[in-house]
Amino acid sequence: MAVAELSSSYTKTSLHSSQLSFLSNRLSNPSRRIDLQPLPPTRNARVVCSVASIQVQAPVPVHAEDPKMKRECYGVFYVTYDLKAEEQTKTWKKMINIAVSGAAGMISNHLLFKLASGEVFGRDQPIALKLLGSERSFQALEGVAMELEDSLYPLLKEVSIGIDPYDVFQDAEWALLIGAKPRGPGMERADLLEINGKIFAEQGKALNAVASRNVKVIVVGNPCNTNALICLKNAPNIPAKNFHALTRLDENRAKCQLALKAGVFYDKVSNMTIWGNHSTTQVPDFLNGRIDGLPVEEVIKDTKWLEEDFTEKIQKRGGVLIKKWGRSSAASTSVSIVDAIRSLVTPTPEGDWFSSGVFTNGNPYGVAEELVFSMPCRSKGDGDYELVKDVIFDDYLLKRITKAEAELLAEKKCVAHLIGEGIAVCDLPEDTMLPGEM
Amino acid sequence: MAVAELSSSYTKTSLHSSQLSFLSNRLSNPSRRIDLQPLPPTRNARVVCSVASIQVQAPVPVHAEDPKMKRECYGVFYVTYDLKAEEQTKTWKKMINIAVSGAAGMISNHLLFKLASGEVFGRDQPIALKLLGSERSFQALEGVAMELEDSLYPLLKEVSIGIDPYDVFQDAEWALLIGAKPRGPGMERADLLEINGKIFAEQGKALNAVASRNVKVIVVGNPCNTNALICLKNAPNIPAKNFHALTRLDENRAKCQLALKAGVFYDKVSNMTIWGNHSTTQVPDFLNGRIDGLPVEEVIKDTKWLEEDFTEKIQKRGGVLIKKWGRSSAASTSVSIVDAIRSLVTPTPEGDWFSSGVFTNGNPYGVAEELVFSMPCRSKGDGDYELVKDVIFDDYLLKRITKAEAELLAEKKCVAHLIGEGIAVCDLPEDTMLPGEM
Repeated sequence: MAVAELSSSYTKTSLHSSQLSFLSNRLSNPSRRIDLQPLPPTRNARVVCSVASIQVQAPVPVHAEDPKMKRECYGVFYVTYDLKAEEQTKTWKKMINIAVSGAAGMISNHLLFKLASGEVFGRDQPIALKLLGSERSFQALEGVAMELEDSLYPLLKEVSIGIDPYDVFQDAEWALLIGAKPRGPGMERADLLEINGKIFAEQGKALNAVASRNVKVIVVGNPCNTNALICLKNAPNIPAKNFHALTRLDENRAKCQLALKAGVFYDKVSNMTIWGNHSTTQVPDFLNGRIDGLPVEEVIKDTKWLEEDFTEKIQKRGGVLIKKWGRSSAASTSVSIVDAIRSLVTPTPEGDWFSSGVFTNGNPYGVAEELVFSMPCRSKGDGDYELVKDVIFDDYLLKRITKAEAELLAEKKCVAHLIGEGIAVCDLPEDTMLPGEM
Repeated sequence: MAVAELSSSYTKTSLHSSQLSFLSNRLSNPSRRIDLQPLPPTRNARVVCSVASIQVQAPVPVHAEDPKMKRECYGVFYVTYDLKAEEQTKTWKKMINIAVSGAAGMISNHLLFKLASGEVFGRDQPIALKLLGSERSFQALEGVAMELEDSLYPLLKEVSIGIDPYDVFQDAEWALLIGAKPRGPGMERADLLEINGKIFAEQGKALNAVASRNVKVIVVGNPCNTNALICLKNAPNIPAKNFHALTRLDENRAKCQLALKAGVFYDKVSNMTIWGNHSTTQVPDFLNGRIDGLPVEEVIKDTKWLEEDFTEKIQKRGGVLIKKWGRSSAASTSVSIVDAIRSLVTPTPEGDWFSSGVFTNGNPYGVAEELVFSMPCRSKGDGDYELVKDVIFDDYLLKRITKAEAELLAEKKCVAHLIGEGIAVCDLPEDTMLPGEM
């Protein structure tokens, strides 16, 4: 717009006198009009989803008869670009694909924005988010995608939404499996295992068919250990080692409770293992845990508290939160998922470790093989991990670990039909769902 | 625990044979038992809230008869420490106090975790969160504090909760005023102005009495422009320039819609001003906005779309989101609050600007003085800002700015009694609440 045009339009307007004087000043001094630095023009600014164009070049069979189920980038994320062609982004890493199930739920509503902000994978790591929902939640998924659009995260280069895991998991390098059916009234853990087991069997098959061959999978939906086992058993072409069941929230809560009891800040608590199942049989390990570098029991002398109250405090936390806050702990759960991912993509601090529910084959603790069991892990930051060998056991700890192992073996028998081990026989002696968990 | 003790307890246990062999290996090789690096012992690990101890040394009169209303650090945040005494934290900045009202609500539930993570103020900026709720929400506030505990954020050194702004705002260097009564059925904007005006008058008085003399205030609760005006008028000892009404979500949505229309990624849209009120009279400015460094109108030739559809698309976004997602846009609102803070604590990129609702006194555009009006700002990153002078106006833009100004002048008359200007006369011709806003 030229100054002359501006000038003519001003004369038609009735203005405040101060506006007029300001504007006439500006018009008489056109060199001050715009002092913006023009940016270089965008290259490749076609309105096409870049993933779609890749698919055209290298088609992969997917179930996509229903046009609604076809993977497409949502809204503004349709834009294609060459990250290497622009000054600000040419030093960035190659984009990674992150699939999230249960993407319209509350945990995801916290998690997706953390992923998009760069606080999880780093400020030079562009990401594509692939959101899996259900027929029922499809509109809500669109709402989530719209809020991601409105957030203008520079690292978030693609968002796609869908309801078919064979579509959404395509080329996924991370799969964060949060979605699961919540436990209805009167439903037992066995019922939940059956219902959610089927979902995770299907998602395992989908990952096996279309995801990256080295996809890392974190199962959050409950019962997460056995769901993770089902998932990995249905994905034989993906290393079993790549599957995790989330016990990080339990670890974080354990650290917090030890800090509270010891009167120190939580960053002083280290080497905290949650052993076993994400259920009431879980074993927060105060024998190997450390406070300020010292064994927990040298700092907290109250053995009765450690043996009786400590575990209960961790396990009842979710229930107390629901009572106080009126909903389940979506925010801190999403923080613990971030922690779990970060523990795999950044080197573990010297001498410390983290807990994750992982495949037991080859474990040095004597835990039965062919289970997903929470154990202490270390990572070089390459997405992989190794189990920590330098832990000690005593009678009390081993007894509890054995109980957790027995529970997971029983859960496994309930889902035998979903992992290719014949007919399921389900005999779970008690309800071990954590209070406040779904 | 010595090896001898461990050994005796193992003999009492019935173990898996592999456990036994693993453990006996470990016992015969005690040098491998623990390879942890002991951490230095904590100094000052008393279980006392460090803020409380400062208060003892330098008492400030506060309203704190009711013990529940006394400010205390929550749970594990009671711990006192000397950040300068520890290797990991001695290079950190001095802790800042951030007060948040409406802390038990959904926007805060996203925002607090972003503040605590370090993504807003930086990884070397320890923070204290001071959460303001109501009598009704006090339990929920505790729930929020518990989730913050469980998140183990190293930068989050203190959390306190309360229901008295004279207590919670003590020494606040930032006050993020999110809490406001939502609009009930049949309630008009005038009613809302009255109800929320009283809340913001009280909070202004409290800030004036107890906050840092240079506190920065961002008002989110609606009607946010006039609430911010009420707040600053009740805080005469704090610079009026320090008060902001949040129009950043509107700016972000405007950028996204321009990007969508132009077929470019949203990071290509710059110099986007929202003028005026956070209401349907708001003016998203496509005359000064730029796409890829070019004036918007050189890239988007569709004047009808710019003049008619563009503004509507931004304004209806909240309503569409509620319809799709079933709740209001808490996540993207909290992202826009983060953006608003970051724009004040990091230097504005060369040639660009951001929008904020700020005090009009001394503005170069001829907007009436003594209002809070959204205008283009730049910051050196010191928490302060200056208004951008290099903007142009045309007939269409000025007409709309004048309408927004008229609305804010009318809103001001409705709250005259709350800003020391006599008797209120309320004559708002139409309901200009944004759809989907509360």
